[in-house]
Amino acid sequence: MRAAYTEKIADLATSLATMCRMAEEAMGQATQALLQADLPIAEKVISDHDELDTLRASCEEKAFALLALQAPVAGDLRSVVAGIQAVNDLDRMGRLALHVAKITRRRHPKQALPEEVKAYFAEMGRVAVHLGKGAAEVLETHDAAMAQDLLDEDDAMDDLHKHLFNVLMDREWKHGVAAAVDVTLLGRYYERFADHAVEVARKVIYLVTGRFPEDVVA
Amino acid sequence: MRAAYTEKIADLATSLATMCRMAEEAMGQATQALLQADLPIAEKVISDHDELDTLRASCEEKAFALLALQAPVAGDLRSVVAGIQAVNDLDRMGRLALHVAKITRRRHPKQALPEEVKAYFAEMGRVAVHLGKGAAEVLETHDAAMAQDLLDEDDAMDDLHKHLFNVLMDREWKHGVAAAVDVTLLGRYYERFADHAVEVARKVIYLVTGRFPEDVVA
Repeated sequence: MRAAYTEKIADLATSLATMCRMAEEAMGQATQALLQADLPIAEKVISDHDELDTLRASCEEKAFALLALQAPVAGDLRSVVAGIQAVNDLDRMGRLALHVAKITRRRHPKQALPEEVKAYFAEMGRVAVHLGKGAAEVLETHDAAMAQDLLDEDDAMDDLHKHLFNVLMDREWKHGVAAAVDVTLLGRYYERFADHAVEVARKVIYLVTGRFPEDVVA
Repeated sequence: MRAAYTEKIADLATSLATMCRMAEEAMGQATQALLQADLPIAEKVISDHDELDTLRASCEEKAFALLALQAPVAGDLRSVVAGIQAVNDLDRMGRLALHVAKITRRRHPKQALPEEVKAYFAEMGRVAVHLGKGAAEVLETHDAAMAQDLLDEDDAMDDLHKHLFNVLMDREWKHGVAAAVDVTLLGRYYERFADHAVEVARKVIYLVTGRFPEDVVA
């Protein structure tokens, strides 16, 4: 009974990690599509999204069943509650990748990004994928130390985002308002993606330690 | 025992409704601050936010205790799970109001909004507050019919957001890129606020009916 329950909790963790990998891959592909104005890749990200939606529903059902089946306590209960909360972050990560792909499709065959800011988005995409991969790994391993490292790595995204805004706000911006609107939204999508990946890491720290990182004296 | 448990679940619902009212009031005040470039009101929204953070933690603890204390089933379990999920939406609503207040503060004593788009934001603010009030009410009453009405009312926000983007993308936009960036972000914040209020309504429908609205044949 106990072993079967532990196995079901591990199965939920695996499904959450799979959701996270799908979202991270979607963001990687969406970034590629954005940088190269590649319509087929953008379309792939958009059509693949349904699968993530299905997996989301399945994760929610699994978590609910774990609560209904048996009354978990302590660490088990924290795992399930953190799982219910993480599903939401993973769902948002997938949707943010979808938004990036949709902007690429809307502007095609034109480029959504002026050349001037492409390097920022290449780097924001790299950081997003890195954080997504890290979040998937901590969901599987429950490695709190690795989760803590991810929290620190989010600063890289914040810095990139700030620099991008400086470029946009510069009087020298010569790509017009429509491009500025796209770049503003895209920047926000990458920043939020990173926030959610970090939030997943925070939840893993909580389920392992019983405390959120801000409660821990550094 | 049973009566005491039901009372604790009702207490969680009341706390969630309080969180929702605080977020809705914050968005109302943030909109007023934005439209009038009123720094004291913006500062109030920013300093009041801590209270919402405290209430969030308290809601999470209450929900967790409800699961740990007793093994709820069926409707009770759905109430607690929906509560755990709703806390996240309510937290986001509060943060989005905070973002609006922070843009107002950053631009002060200048106006963040060109006169041309003020009417859009007055109306988006009105819709956001209306949806927020509605969400608070359905959190308290668990009225699924009222929750369904809120789902339909979100269209008003989507329409406003689309119109706003048309204004921004128009070649006649003459307020420069910096204002366009602010307006883009602000529009996104109001749209997301409405999305979260609607998501809260969806969760109430789920906890009452056991099914999410999209599963129900219209």
